[in-house]
Amino acid sequence: MIELGANRYGKSAIRLVKVIRGSDRHQVRDLTVSISLEGDFTASYTEGDNSAVVATDTMKNTTYAFAREHLTGPIEAFALTLARHFGAFDQVAAATVSVDEHRWVRMPTEDGAAGDAFVRSGDFTRTAVVTVSDAGVGIDAGIRDLAVMKTGRSAFRGFPRDDYTTLAETDDRIMATLLTATWRYGEAVHDADFDALFDEIGASILDVFADHDSESVQASIWIVGRAVLDRHPEIGSIQLTLPNLHHWLVDLSPFGQPNDGEIFVATREPFGLIEATVRRGR
Amino acid sequence: MIELGANRYGKSAIRLVKVIRGSDRHQVRDLTVSISLEGDFTASYTEGDNSAVVATDTMKNTTYAFAREHLTGPIEAFALTLARHFGAFDQVAAATVSVDEHRWVRMPTEDGAAGDAFVRSGDFTRTAVVTVSDAGVGIDAGIRDLAVMKTGRSAFRGFPRDDYTTLAETDDRIMATLLTATWRYGEAVHDADFDALFDEIGASILDVFADHDSESVQASIWIVGRAVLDRHPEIGSIQLTLPNLHHWLVDLSPFGQPNDGEIFVATREPFGLIEATVRRGR
Amino acid sequence: MIELGANRYGKSAIRLVKVIRGSDRHQVRDLTVSISLEGDFTASYTEGDNSAVVATDTMKNTTYAFAREHLTGPIEAFALTLARHFGAFDQVAAATVSVDEHRWVRMPTEDGAAGDAFVRSGDFTRTAVVTVSDAGVGIDAGIRDLAVMKTGRSAFRGFPRDDYTTLAETDDRIMATLLTATWRYGEAVHDADFDALFDEIGASILDVFADHDSESVQASIWIVGRAVLDRHPEIGSIQLTLPNLHHWLVDLSPFGQPNDGEIFVATREPFGLIEATVRRGR
Amino acid sequence: MIELGANRYGKSAIRLVKVIRGSDRHQVRDLTVSISLEGDFTASYTEGDNSAVVATDTMKNTTYAFAREHLTGPIEAFALTLARHFGAFDQVAAATVSVDEHRWVRMPTEDGAAGDAFVRSGDFTRTAVVTVSDAGVGIDAGIRDLAVMKTGRSAFRGFPRDDYTTLAETDDRIMATLLTATWRYGEAVHDADFDALFDEIGASILDVFADHDSESVQASIWIVGRAVLDRHPEIGSIQLTLPNLHHWLVDLSPFGQPNDGEIFVATREPFGLIEATVRRGR
Repeated sequence: MIELGANRYGKSAIRLVKVIRGSDRHQVRDLTVSISLEGDFTASYTEGDNSAVVATDTMKNTTYAFAREHLTGPIEAFALTLARHFGAFDQVAAATVSVDEHRWVRMPTEDGAAGDAFVRSGDFTRTAVVTVSDAGVGIDAGIRDLAVMKTGRSAFRGFPRDDYTTLAETDDRIMATLLTATWRYGEAVHDADFDALFDEIGASILDVFADHDSESVQASIWIVGRAVLDRHPEIGSIQLTLPNLHHWLVDLSPFGQPNDGEIFVATREPFGLIEATVRRGR
Repeated sequence: MIELGANRYGKSAIRLVKVIRGSDRHQVRDLTVSISLEGDFTASYTEGDNSAVVATDTMKNTTYAFAREHLTGPIEAFALTLARHFGAFDQVAAATVSVDEHRWVRMPTEDGAAGDAFVRSGDFTRTAVVTVSDAGVGIDAGIRDLAVMKTGRSAFRGFPRDDYTTLAETDDRIMATLLTATWRYGEAVHDADFDALFDEIGASILDVFADHDSESVQASIWIVGRAVLDRHPEIGSIQLTLPNLHHWLVDLSPFGQPNDGEIFVATREPFGLIEATVRRGR
Repeated sequence: MIELGANRYGKSAIRLVKVIRGSDRHQVRDLTVSISLEGDFTASYTEGDNSAVVATDTMKNTTYAFAREHLTGPIEAFALTLARHFGAFDQVAAATVSVDEHRWVRMPTEDGAAGDAFVRSGDFTRTAVVTVSDAGVGIDAGIRDLAVMKTGRSAFRGFPRDDYTTLAETDDRIMATLLTATWRYGEAVHDADFDALFDEIGASILDVFADHDSESVQASIWIVGRAVLDRHPEIGSIQLTLPNLHHWLVDLSPFGQPNDGEIFVATREPFGLIEATVRRGR
Repeated sequence: MIELGANRYGKSAIRLVKVIRGSDRHQVRDLTVSISLEGDFTASYTEGDNSAVVATDTMKNTTYAFAREHLTGPIEAFALTLARHFGAFDQVAAATVSVDEHRWVRMPTEDGAAGDAFVRSGDFTRTAVVTVSDAGVGIDAGIRDLAVMKTGRSAFRGFPRDDYTTLAETDDRIMATLLTATWRYGEAVHDADFDALFDEIGASILDVFADHDSESVQASIWIVGRAVLDRHPEIGSIQLTLPNLHHWLVDLSPFGQPNDGEIFVATREPFGLIEATVRRGR
């Protein structure tokens, strides 16, 4: 007997820009929204019966329509509003809404920050993922693809050597990564000041990343993750994903030159990939 | 108390080309390999103790060294050899090896197919993911990003209408997608002719995709998935991921023209996303 | 005194799919069209006077409207029709229309090639660029990003050595590239069978690429380009752009293995880049 | 007779990171360098004679070797040093060196800016292109892909209407673009303070972009370009390339809502593309 297993569907990459026109200064919100539903959709697969299938086009329309009234605060709140709307449909067991925010900052001018011109800040993408399901509400927030680098206090030593090991031990290497972090807010924090929390948690990540001595990417994840949980009781766990973007010392000896940690080739392939969750014990 | 949760690490995007030099004709294998380990690595996080951390550089070296001797058959077998090697380390609970194969075909010439010149076939990427763990061996195979299109016999009707629904019902639309399929081989099939199976399963997917009448992307997933399981007893389940790449009919009426399913604008954003597993019942 | 120099404007990335519905079999055309105009547009810059500025939105509309009636043959002909339309505006000195064609082939099934289902062939993009100007009509056609590889008969020797040269001479290396070729049709060929010519010229490129002994990418460009001009009197010149995508032999000696031209690492950065035009002498 | 036409070759995408280790604070330079040569290379094409072909691998080595000693100031100076080195070869008629700089800024911490940890600033890429040829030295500098947006004071009116025009006139639209600007320094400025000039010219671009009323992208290019030339006598011309990344007002009327310039869909395809040079008259 053949049967339907796990399944979900939705709309991805809904691109939304909202201009909030204050008395004299505009504000820009620039989001990419994705919506995904799980629930009682078996008949749409096995019977071709679409009577329960909220059209993904309707999801898109709903996002734009809700944006006008409800996109007034942090993306966590907007995602929660959308997730509650879709989670309220009878056939929906879980509605997940993911929102990326692309930051625009006021353009600097000779007369100060502009009122109606903006520069996009490409440093990273702020993310939120809210799930409304029978099990309750889950709110994740995070940072995606923040390029950071430590040029000192990064080592990698004491690893096992077998027949295929050629890597030298080092007590001074470049550690460069595109940091992605996602943290889960505790249940008591569902109407918190998510913007302030985001700024504080982001600052903690940078502060600890800059300040610690690293024995490995793994050790850095633990040190950063533990510190974030220590400092921010609002969150229950944090997942960190760190590709290790290798910077190899160039051999300048053929050219009669030393290379004392000065000249590196930056590479993209292959890369290490280290992922871990740090959480409060149960 | 703060503790380490789920974690894994490895090397991604190891780019490997092997040239097999027969008496008069070469053969090209072009792979991208990724390796990921789970197991007893807690001390590397919490203590900065790297004594159990197989360096990701060693993973890369091992891949190249093994390729010379062991990359002689399908990617499933090569991935299995690598996964068994890494799975045999004491500290490793699960070793996952993912291999993408990029196909090169002999270059056509006036004198027939060339012996030492090749064209890459960009239609799709063939994938394999093998996991060796305490629970046994799992072998997944698949196709990634195969662009396919139905210009007829694709409908979407009978979906619910609410305040945010504007999409018209249609019994004739374009259905276009980048199909990704992953199927899991049963345990008895671990030394099968994976190349032949891949070709047969791929052919089944295309055959059914072309032949069926679609009431929705969901219905197409079920029809294709069920048929694949029906035809191929070697596999226990298949996961299909189909983005719905919308093709919208252009309104030509301002130019005094009809548009009877002829002229479409192809779009990338936003897109529907439908994912489901079809499996044998238990 | 400050003045306006060279300028042009237009619409890029107009995505167009046409389904031609024959009695029992469909045909799919999938194009990306870009339009660019030069001419007397100075006032739009210096005076904010848009009275001569054909809106780029109008260019897009025109493309879709023309596709219904005029997209019946090769992309060169469609581009020419559009370029003539825009070139006929008084203020336009030169209209350039670029068309990329993405090929879809009939899906293979057990009952033969499907009538209304298609697979996109990702091997390369076919290109055409047509310019209509006071100087006449220019028709370029080409192939973009065709991945090809020679695993034999490729050398690089006899290059000069200075203080910064470490590369060894080789008489046997992999030459891999993403070939882009653009050829210009002579003036007498403006209503030729461009589809047949494209197939023949493409076949010539592959035939010679496979068959020749290469002393360098430069030498390969000359051999391919000269042969194409020799075989195809319809074209007056051909430009070839070949990135040299290096494949480096992996040093397996630390693992006690030889590597006699078998195991390579494929790289993307850095890459050589060689570009040249081969033409009929004047 | 068939002959070689225009040709050039070189190395692209040389990825270079330099860490300058001061007494207590590091500095990071992160460059992508490309080198291209023109000159007497005909024999390498037509004769397979590589005796004049400086290997692109040697170009790469030279870049790394020179970086240690010569990468101490602005990228314009480093590019000039490399271009002079390659331009001095007898067979070279013109050597062009392009350098992109990716900015890393000190990581903010609770104790101030870090000494050895950095965040990449993704707002834009700073570019320099230096050509050394028989005709002299040309130094171009620029900004690539700076995302900017005007939410007010942007109109598009008074354009011609033909049978294919549907776009409404507007006196209030979003103008969003990925601005790329390249300016050419005058000959007297070849040992200027290029870092200070870059900052000043960049500031001018933003200042004028924010401050002006736009009648079209064309008009904006003129206003920005003219102002930059007015304010900066060091430069002789500036080229501006502005894709028009359309933001379309969403029709919210089906949901009973007005949309008074508030909710937009951001699009990537198709896009307008406007390019022009503004220069000093001759």
